[in-house]
Amino acid sequence: MLITPGKLLAKINSPDDLKKLDEVQLVQLCEELRNFIIDNVSVYGGHFGASLGVVELTVALHYVFNTPTDQLVWDVGHQAYGHKILTGRKENFHTNRTYKGISGFPKRNESEYDTFGVGHSSTSVSAALGMAMASKYLGLEDKQHIAVIGDGALTGGMAFEGLNHAGVSNTNLLIILNDNCMSIDPNVGALKDYLTDITTSKTYNRLKDDVWNLLGKLSHFGKNAQEIVSKVENGIKSTLLSQSNLFESLNLRYFGPVDGHDVDHMVAVLRDLKQIKGPKILHCITVKGKGYGPAEKGNATTWHAPGTFDKISGEIHKKVYDAPQAPKYQDVFGHTLVELAKQNDKIMGITPAMPSGSSMNIMMKEMPDRALDVGIAEQHAVTFSAGLATQGIIPFCNIYSSFMQRAYDQVIHDVCIQNLPVNFCLDRAGFAGADGPTHHGAYDIAYMRCIPNMIVSAPMNEQELRNLMFTAQLPRKEKAFSIRYPRGQGVMPSWKTPFEEIEIGKGRKIKDGEHLAILTFGHIGNYAIEACEQLTRKGINPAHFDLRFAKPLDEEMLHEVFTNYKKVITIEDGCIQGGIGSAVLEFMADHNYQAEVKRLGIPDQIVEHGEQIELHQECEFDVEGIIHASETMLIPATSYKSK
Amino acid sequence: MLITPGKLLAKINSPDDLKKLDEVQLVQLCEELRNFIIDNVSVYGGHFGASLGVVELTVALHYVFNTPTDQLVWDVGHQAYGHKILTGRKENFHTNRTYKGISGFPKRNESEYDTFGVGHSSTSVSAALGMAMASKYLGLEDKQHIAVIGDGALTGGMAFEGLNHAGVSNTNLLIILNDNCMSIDPNVGALKDYLTDITTSKTYNRLKDDVWNLLGKLSHFGKNAQEIVSKVENGIKSTLLSQSNLFESLNLRYFGPVDGHDVDHMVAVLRDLKQIKGPKILHCITVKGKGYGPAEKGNATTWHAPGTFDKISGEIHKKVYDAPQAPKYQDVFGHTLVELAKQNDKIMGITPAMPSGSSMNIMMKEMPDRALDVGIAEQHAVTFSAGLATQGIIPFCNIYSSFMQRAYDQVIHDVCIQNLPVNFCLDRAGFAGADGPTHHGAYDIAYMRCIPNMIVSAPMNEQELRNLMFTAQLPRKEKAFSIRYPRGQGVMPSWKTPFEEIEIGKGRKIKDGEHLAILTFGHIGNYAIEACEQLTRKGINPAHFDLRFAKPLDEEMLHEVFTNYKKVITIEDGCIQGGIGSAVLEFMADHNYQAEVKRLGIPDQIVEHGEQIELHQECEFDVEGIIHASETMLIPATSYKSK
Repeated sequence: MLITPGKLLAKINSPDDLKKLDEVQLVQLCEELRNFIIDNVSVYGGHFGASLGVVELTVALHYVFNTPTDQLVWDVGHQAYGHKILTGRKENFHTNRTYKGISGFPKRNESEYDTFGVGHSSTSVSAALGMAMASKYLGLEDKQHIAVIGDGALTGGMAFEGLNHAGVSNTNLLIILNDNCMSIDPNVGALKDYLTDITTSKTYNRLKDDVWNLLGKLSHFGKNAQEIVSKVENGIKSTLLSQSNLFESLNLRYFGPVDGHDVDHMVAVLRDLKQIKGPKILHCITVKGKGYGPAEKGNATTWHAPGTFDKISGEIHKKVYDAPQAPKYQDVFGHTLVELAKQNDKIMGITPAMPSGSSMNIMMKEMPDRALDVGIAEQHAVTFSAGLATQGIIPFCNIYSSFMQRAYDQVIHDVCIQNLPVNFCLDRAGFAGADGPTHHGAYDIAYMRCIPNMIVSAPMNEQELRNLMFTAQLPRKEKAFSIRYPRGQGVMPSWKTPFEEIEIGKGRKIKDGEHLAILTFGHIGNYAIEACEQLTRKGINPAHFDLRFAKPLDEEMLHEVFTNYKKVITIEDGCIQGGIGSAVLEFMADHNYQAEVKRLGIPDQIVEHGEQIELHQECEFDVEGIIHASETMLIPATSYKSK
Repeated sequence: MLITPGKLLAKINSPDDLKKLDEVQLVQLCEELRNFIIDNVSVYGGHFGASLGVVELTVALHYVFNTPTDQLVWDVGHQAYGHKILTGRKENFHTNRTYKGISGFPKRNESEYDTFGVGHSSTSVSAALGMAMASKYLGLEDKQHIAVIGDGALTGGMAFEGLNHAGVSNTNLLIILNDNCMSIDPNVGALKDYLTDITTSKTYNRLKDDVWNLLGKLSHFGKNAQEIVSKVENGIKSTLLSQSNLFESLNLRYFGPVDGHDVDHMVAVLRDLKQIKGPKILHCITVKGKGYGPAEKGNATTWHAPGTFDKISGEIHKKVYDAPQAPKYQDVFGHTLVELAKQNDKIMGITPAMPSGSSMNIMMKEMPDRALDVGIAEQHAVTFSAGLATQGIIPFCNIYSSFMQRAYDQVIHDVCIQNLPVNFCLDRAGFAGADGPTHHGAYDIAYMRCIPNMIVSAPMNEQELRNLMFTAQLPRKEKAFSIRYPRGQGVMPSWKTPFEEIEIGKGRKIKDGEHLAILTFGHIGNYAIEACEQLTRKGINPAHFDLRFAKPLDEEMLHEVFTNYKKVITIEDGCIQGGIGSAVLEFMADHNYQAEVKRLGIPDQIVEHGEQIELHQECEFDVEGIIHASETMLIPATSYKSK
């Protein structure tokens, strides 16, 4: 189904076309742009609420600024649909987030208008400041640099690091705070309350006016009053103006709040700001899902990325299945954590701004004092968990694999060097799918297993996840315990199995074999089961071992493998440099075994977005890939031996 | 030389003893404690200025609070000498930072008073908040949790993440802001200016008083004034009080600033604060190096960790050498960067708060607009560098190996996924020495080489460092380039060699051999040279290859190695899980070579502090270790071959 843009939008293939419009036409253009997004997402899926919230801002920015010379950086990036549509990607927009299609996030090699790739949050201030500093050094005084950052992303520490530097940078930097009180879930923390405060009627600006008025009138009241006034005025000038606002205390000129949905006013404000040199912040109030009733009135979390839906009724399409389906791993995590927490009152759950994405919201609802959303703050989440652990609490800190990269030092410095028993659940490990490279959990096996005092595990199915979680909450004095599992469904429709302790460092033999051994880690082992069946039908009999732990390795099992097999394939949904395949090679070298080992996994390149299965296929570790690797390994055996 | 403590200090072996003192004795105790620190550090070396700055705070904290039940967390930790001396480590204090001696930082397994290990900055708020949250959940209402954090550490983003959560936590948390305007180097950024503002005479508190006085007087001035007053008062109450202070805008009750060197007042203030529930912040003004004239009056950076010195004259001991010495790698970096920047106007230098530690201060002095200290903000430093690179700037971002852990996501997400040509110089790679495990650069080879679009290199000497830097600044369109080098001296007293381009991915053959091949990465290769000489005298003839690049590997050279040698030793000053030895194993497996490979490096455990050479010895990759490994590999050769 081809989506037809409205009359004005149809003619816009770049911001140059946009600039040809009369200002009075912008309201209509916004409506058309909004409809185009609604039409597209309702049919093809994708992020929704965020882009609807910045339609007017997007139009105003490209109308006023000289993009792409002026540098526009979108934080997180899932709100950039309007930006993409206005900058030459309208015709391709239906390929959004599909394999080989356009990316759901800004991406430098997709368009010169995408000045900085994103996906994770809180990077825009630093990136735009870097650009602005370069322009300052290069003498490009008129060049503008704009970072659009949400109030949720602003809680990420690196945004604060950027603001702290921006305030003393004297660069041409405009930070637009897109304040909609939301991360994917409702935003949390003291900053949110603060932003709410300054957007109520008793605003900073109002106060300032009141004080000026007051002082003006007071000067007629005689000497005593004048003296006080003068004293207070000095105080006010130096203190109130420079400090009464969090951003002004960081030496950023603060403007706003303004209504982010009034496109005419936004154009006027941005034109003014363009004339003001130095770092500054414009506070815009927007509504996530603006202009689409069900999203505005409904649950903003649901409408963050609703999947496809009926545009008229607002009904989100749900797949209907004939047979019971396997649950999502995240839901197994969410329910199991509550189950365990009911039995073990030392358990607490921690999520950095991913209650719904991790299914921690189940526990937050049932046990609000024991499950905490700490905001977009992975670093804090990990060290906070370490602090809990010092007091005998058993923390389950759930962070997506790719987001855990942001807390790497905290895992090493605060957890593992101190040998604290913190449990990490790494959701979205392996290929994340449509979100693409920024969200692929490609590196965690490699970056976790090199840390001492760290247990690295992955469940092959729901039962294994439950048992690993059960094991992780049993009292232990030391070692961090990480459990990685992928985005999406498992394989067990009847997943509520009784808990069983797993011996740490013990793998599982799935099947014996003859010609080669296949070693898998995690969910991807289910591909191997299927591959083994097909290979058996072809007369090849592979053994299959589920390693289960990348660290400590099951040495007994590996001795069995290398004693009995001279051809070994390792498979992981993770980077092959330094991953579990390398761990197996290390074991082999340390014990002087000789075998031919083929490592399957994510190759040493950036793999783009697509369905998980498409990416597994591309990287040749889907069922076909495993079969192919096995056959290739066996067929040239004679020639190899004759070397 | 044994240092004798003063009369009062001599009797204090724990905070219980301290609490037996009369309040009037505290001033004397502070003097004795200060002298004890001065006496010790002047003779044995160590961190200096920071601990002197918190003598009174330390005494007051242990006097007022019920440590170790109350949880006291020191940020960064190098200011905790007084704390260590008062909590049972006075007698051992002369072993501070020496091999097998006490640690220079708080460490959980050293004392129950060390509630949380540190070394890196900005972790204390998160850790103490975790503890406080646990106590709240466990119903321990009277338990106190105190984080002592410097103004420098406060610029680290994770501190802000912690504050944002603390403000809505309703926990028993006291944050003490130890404001001395310094990181190791002078603190930078907008926050510093802000803190300076509120500590001048026109303080927040003064303004508040002025406004209250004014309003009180105004109410007598008739209806109109009253109306305004009432209006303003509401505004003031809701806005000024809750927002005119950065910390109050984050919902933390703010107290201060107070003089951190007035121990009696500190005791009184802390007693008061103990009674106030909820998260709060006390702003203390202190002087780094307080009480020791040369440190107070001199350069605070110099006196951060001066080495040994003459206590009376304040003269810092300098070693005198007969022959010219090899320079420190950091100085080769610092001078070479300036040299290159003079030839290439696209080069800029970035350091997160380590101008003197990285020797970036050389460029900051010569080219202030091209070398930037961005504060304790590794995440920002990396993404800011990425932003610079998008505009054609060639950034050299210098971050210690262990601190780079804090910017891991930014390296992946902002640099490598976008394939931007950013140069990283990783100082203090490998064992850091006396600073211990928090500062060991143990993991970077493993965590860097698993990232696509990343070049991973290490120079074996000064000339190599210069040539790698020269190569890194040559125009290239893509790939990040990381150069790791250790703390301390190189090997070339005449180090100013002419620049030569190095082909990326090419290693160096140091010598041919016969019985085995030794593959080294970086400075540690100099051990191998020495070992080869000794082995040769013993009749063993090893080949020696300097790999130079962990990524891309020199495949041609490795083909030569595995074609000619069946025994291979790899050596790296980094963790052996996933390190360059594993990269060599991967190559071997991928090309079906069979050889016995022994990997030397940092084992899978936390290695404590000590001189670098002591730690290399402990981990058996010093000269002796290499010789031993070579001999062991060769001696049982016959029996192995007969297998």
